[in-house]
Amino acid sequence: MTDIPDPSAWSCPLPLRDHPAVVMGHGGGGTLSAELVEHLFLPAFDDPALRLLHDAAVVEAPAGRLALTTDSFVVRPLFFPGGSIGDLAINGTVNDLAMVGAIPLYLTAGFVLEEGLPLATLGGIVQRMRAAARAAGVRIVAGDTKVVDRGHGDGCYINTAGVGVVAPHVDLSPRHARPGDRVLVSGTIGDHGTAILSVREGLEFESVITSDCAPLTGLAQAVLAAAPGTRVLRDATRGGVAAVLTEIAQAAGVGVVLEEGALPVRPEVRGACELLGLDPLFVANEGKMVAIVPAAEADAALAAVRADPLGRDAAVIGTVTADHPGFLVARTGIGATRVVPLPLGEQLPRIC
Amino acid sequence: MTDIPDPSAWSCPLPLRDHPAVVMGHGGGGTLSAELVEHLFLPAFDDPALRLLHDAAVVEAPAGRLALTTDSFVVRPLFFPGGSIGDLAINGTVNDLAMVGAIPLYLTAGFVLEEGLPLATLGGIVQRMRAAARAAGVRIVAGDTKVVDRGHGDGCYINTAGVGVVAPHVDLSPRHARPGDRVLVSGTIGDHGTAILSVREGLEFESVITSDCAPLTGLAQAVLAAAPGTRVLRDATRGGVAAVLTEIAQAAGVGVVLEEGALPVRPEVRGACELLGLDPLFVANEGKMVAIVPAAEADAALAAVRADPLGRDAAVIGTVTADHPGFLVARTGIGATRVVPLPLGEQLPRIC
Repeated sequence: MTDIPDPSAWSCPLPLRDHPAVVMGHGGGGTLSAELVEHLFLPAFDDPALRLLHDAAVVEAPAGRLALTTDSFVVRPLFFPGGSIGDLAINGTVNDLAMVGAIPLYLTAGFVLEEGLPLATLGGIVQRMRAAARAAGVRIVAGDTKVVDRGHGDGCYINTAGVGVVAPHVDLSPRHARPGDRVLVSGTIGDHGTAILSVREGLEFESVITSDCAPLTGLAQAVLAAAPGTRVLRDATRGGVAAVLTEIAQAAGVGVVLEEGALPVRPEVRGACELLGLDPLFVANEGKMVAIVPAAEADAALAAVRADPLGRDAAVIGTVTADHPGFLVARTGIGATRVVPLPLGEQLPRIC
Repeated sequence: MTDIPDPSAWSCPLPLRDHPAVVMGHGGGGTLSAELVEHLFLPAFDDPALRLLHDAAVVEAPAGRLALTTDSFVVRPLFFPGGSIGDLAINGTVNDLAMVGAIPLYLTAGFVLEEGLPLATLGGIVQRMRAAARAAGVRIVAGDTKVVDRGHGDGCYINTAGVGVVAPHVDLSPRHARPGDRVLVSGTIGDHGTAILSVREGLEFESVITSDCAPLTGLAQAVLAAAPGTRVLRDATRGGVAAVLTEIAQAAGVGVVLEEGALPVRPEVRGACELLGLDPLFVANEGKMVAIVPAAEADAALAAVRADPLGRDAAVIGTVTADHPGFLVARTGIGATRVVPLPLGEQLPRIC
C-alpha cells in the first residue's frame, strides 16, 4: 500500500539520536523532556507562541463568540492509507469547530506516549500534524507530553483541543431541524472506517481504499454563504451518517427520511462493506459533512458544496419530516421503508 | 488513609447500571456513548454549553488576549491523599493559565478510558472534577470520550485544555528575569510527589502526607496586584522547583542562587524524602507557585501571598544573579555553594 506515509523518512536531529525510542524520562520535565520539545516538536510546529515555552500561550482573538472543542485520538494502526493519527488529530478538531460555523484559529496538542515508541514514528506523526495544520489554516500554540510504561498506551494517543471564532449571525444547532428541510451529504460515505478496517484485517482489494480525512472549514463556510438559513452542520465521524441523523432527529423532535438510492458510496467501499458485514451508513467518515438546510435553499447549498473539490460527490439524500419523531427511516429503491436503529456501540472500535 | 476519596460514594444512575464497568461501546458514538454522556458527564459538569451536545461549545469571550494551554494526566494511582486524577486535571490546567497572568474561564475535558474501568470509579473522578472546577471558577464546556481495550490505558487518562483571558498590561515570561530580582515560593515544596510515592510504596508515616493540589489563580493575581513589576510566575510541577528555576535561568541568561535554609519543607516530607532518597527540590508540586519579582517589590509580593491561606508558608528563597548564567546554584547554611543539575528525567514517573 504505497500511500501509507513512511515514518522512516523523518530524519532524527541531534541530540535525540542517543535515544532512538521514547523513554520514561521524555515525560519527566527534565533534560530529556526539554530535548524532545526543542528538537522534535518546536521545529515541526514552528509557532512563535509555542517557542516562548511558557505554561500557556498568549494569543490575540477578536471580540465576540468563541468555539471550543476537544477530541482524543486512539486509532489503530497509527498510519493508514490516506492519513495517520496526526492527520486525524488536526482535522477532527478543525471539523468540530467548522461544524458550529466557526473559523478555526488555534489548536493545542497533548501527547500520551508509550515507552519504546520509536522516535522516528513520533517524528512522522508530528510531520503529518504540521502539514495538516498548515492545510487547515490553524496554528498549534500549546502542547504537552506524558510518557506511560511499556505495554500501556498503544504507542501514541493524541488529544487536540481547538479554539475558533464564530461570526455574530451564525446559530447552528441540531435542535433547529424543521419538517420539510433537506438533508445533504458532502460526498461518499464510509471511506475512513473501511480504510482502517481493511488495513487491520489485511484485506487486499483491486484499488486501495483510502481515508477521506480532510478539513471541512471551506465546505461549511460555502454552505453558510449559499444557504444562510442552514439549520445544522455535522461531520459524520463515529457512528457514521446514521448516528448523526438520529441525534438530530432526537434533538429536534423530528423524523428523518433517507433515500437509500441517493447515498453516495464508492464501489470499492460498498464491496468491502459487503465482505465485512458492515453498513456504510454506520461507518465513520473523517472528511464528510451532513447539512440540514431549508428546502428553498437546498439547490444553492448543493451547488456551493459541489463547487469545492472536496464536495464534488455531494448529494441530497433525504428530508426532515414531522412523522416518526426521533427516528431515522430509510426508503429503499422500491419504496419500502425501514427504521434505522442507532447501534449500541461502534461497529469498529479504535477508528479515530 | 481516611482522606482518600471514596469513589463508591458515587451512586450510579439508570440506565448505566446495566454496565457496571466501561465497555468498548461507551466510546463508539452510539447509544452507549450517548447514555454515558447523558447520565454521567452532563449531570456532573452541568453546563449550558455542554448540554447543547454540538460538535463544539460556543461561548462569549472578551476582546483582547487569550491564554491557551493543554495538559494530559496519567497519574497512578487514580485517587491519592489530598486528591485524584480529576483534581489534578482541573487544577493543573487552571494553574498553567494562571501562571501567564490569565483569569481561567473555560476548560475542555478529553477522557481515554480503559475497558473494564468501574463506572463508580469514573463517577468518583468526575465528581472531583466538578468540585475542583467550581472551586477554581472555571466552566467545563466541551468533552470527548474514547475507550481502549482492556490492558491498555491504565484505567483512565484525562486531557484538559484551557482558555483564559489576559489583562492588557500583563506580560510575564521566563525571559524577563533580571539580576537582583528575588525568588519567592508560595509554600512548602515536595508535598505532591511525596504523597503519590508514599501511596505507591505503601509507606506509613506518623501523619499522612497529602498532595498540595490547588488552584493558584488567587495567589497569582495577588502577586500581580502587589508587585506590578513581576517578571515571571511558574507552578513547580514535574521536575519541582529545581526544574522551574533552571528553565528560567536558561531562558533569561541569568543565574539563580538558592538559600537552602530558606526552603519551606514539611518535616514529614523531609523525612519521607530522606527515606526514599529524593531531594524535595526536584519533587513535583501541584499547588505551589514560584515568582520572580524585582527586589524593591519582594516584601509587598511576599505579604500578598502570605495573606492567602494557600500562601501562608511562602518564603523568599533566592536571588537572580549575573553570575553563572543558565545555572541554578544552592547555598548551604555554612555558605558553601553547589550547582544543582537539572535531572535527565523525573525521579518519579507518572506523578501527574
